[in-house]
Amino acid sequence: MAPPPRHPRLLSLEGGEGAGKSTALASVRELLQRRGHEVVLTREPGGTPLAERIRTLLLGTRDTLRGEAEEEPLAAETELLLMFAARAQHVRHVVRPALRRGAFVVSDRFTDSSYAYQGDGRGLDRQWIADLERRAVGLRPGLTLLLDLDVREGRARTSGRDLWPDRIESEQDDFFERVRLGFRRRAQAEPERFRLVDAALPPPAVGEAVAGAVSAYLDTLTDADLA
Amino acid sequence: MAPPPRHPRLLSLEGGEGAGKSTALASVRELLQRRGHEVVLTREPGGTPLAERIRTLLLGTRDTLRGEAEEEPLAAETELLLMFAARAQHVRHVVRPALRRGAFVVSDRFTDSSYAYQGDGRGLDRQWIADLERRAVGLRPGLTLLLDLDVREGRARTSGRDLWPDRIESEQDDFFERVRLGFRRRAQAEPERFRLVDAALPPPAVGEAVAGAVSAYLDTLTDADLA
Repeated sequence: MAPPPRHPRLLSLEGGEGAGKSTALASVRELLQRRGHEVVLTREPGGTPLAERIRTLLLGTRDTLRGEAEEEPLAAETELLLMFAARAQHVRHVVRPALRRGAFVVSDRFTDSSYAYQGDGRGLDRQWIADLERRAVGLRPGLTLLLDLDVREGRARTSGRDLWPDRIESEQDDFFERVRLGFRRRAQAEPERFRLVDAALPPPAVGEAVAGAVSAYLDTLTDADLA
Repeated sequence: MAPPPRHPRLLSLEGGEGAGKSTALASVRELLQRRGHEVVLTREPGGTPLAERIRTLLLGTRDTLRGEAEEEPLAAETELLLMFAARAQHVRHVVRPALRRGAFVVSDRFTDSSYAYQGDGRGLDRQWIADLERRAVGLRPGLTLLLDLDVREGRARTSGRDLWPDRIESEQDDFFERVRLGFRRRAQAEPERFRLVDAALPPPAVGEAVAGAVSAYLDTLTDADLA
């Protein structure tokens, strides 16, 4: 089954914890705005009021993370279906409407995260994820920046700021190693869509790599892509 | 693709609004308990703390139903995925553990509701639902009681009690006609699993029909089914 078509004005950022996605997102937005484009910055899971409520279910509330609320562990299948429920809503209520009016959409994570976290990380069947992508999402980004970083280095960077790590952040290193490998394999398999950025570089160099990749990508777009 | 196997000790009740499911559930439980069985009474969407939180997202809160909270309409695809996310959780944390220890599970709605409401009602692809059933659920009830009732009659019965109809209850009659037809078609296609009960009869007669159907079913079970 062919993957869904890429949309030139949908850009996504992917990567593990502590890879510097937030900084990169801000600089991608600035670059697009300087070129005169409308930019919608959004995130997954979430991006709409209802999808943000699904995000809370997925990642846990402070009470559930502290073990103070009575809530059972999330089954891997439930996690996957909640991710795609949020994504179906996000695509229909934020992503597609913005693309239709000519804006760029820059998403902090998109479907690749489900392949990496629920597929490679949790071991769920890739074919199932592909089917959900086709039925519930129906499009891929034109460009995906993968901020790649050693798992321990990413952990070390976030250990100070994450006083309450969420459900997924609480996983062990071997989980994140599988996720990282999954992302890298996807990048290798789709070189025309992915740009791998070495997130171990000093922040200014990461910023330059991100800006360079986005600029080069924008230069390939036609007037039809931008309309 | 073959449907998932039936479990002899999983029973479900299906039917539209106002068909008398609650009364029927209570009498099924009583009948099973009188015969000395442990009974777990549960419902969908819901049945676990987390699945009940998904139920709230699905059916709406009082604020969202009054239009006082900022929340976008639920896309049909999102509704389907949330239903199966809740069901995946319910099956793993309530249904299977209870069946494993030898109890009967009586569920107020199960997967047939997704075929009827999201398939026939919302027009989503039946093949997708079948795939979700296989991957996220993996079992069917041994017996399903379908309380069948004219849509307007059901509406008339609930109009007094539903001061705040939920998202699905707020649909129009033609939606519920499709749902009813969907349920009836499923019952016809699987006569060995379904028992159709005419919910238009007076309550005592409905109660007798339900009890009769369950008793007759129990008499067919072997010792192996009950272990």
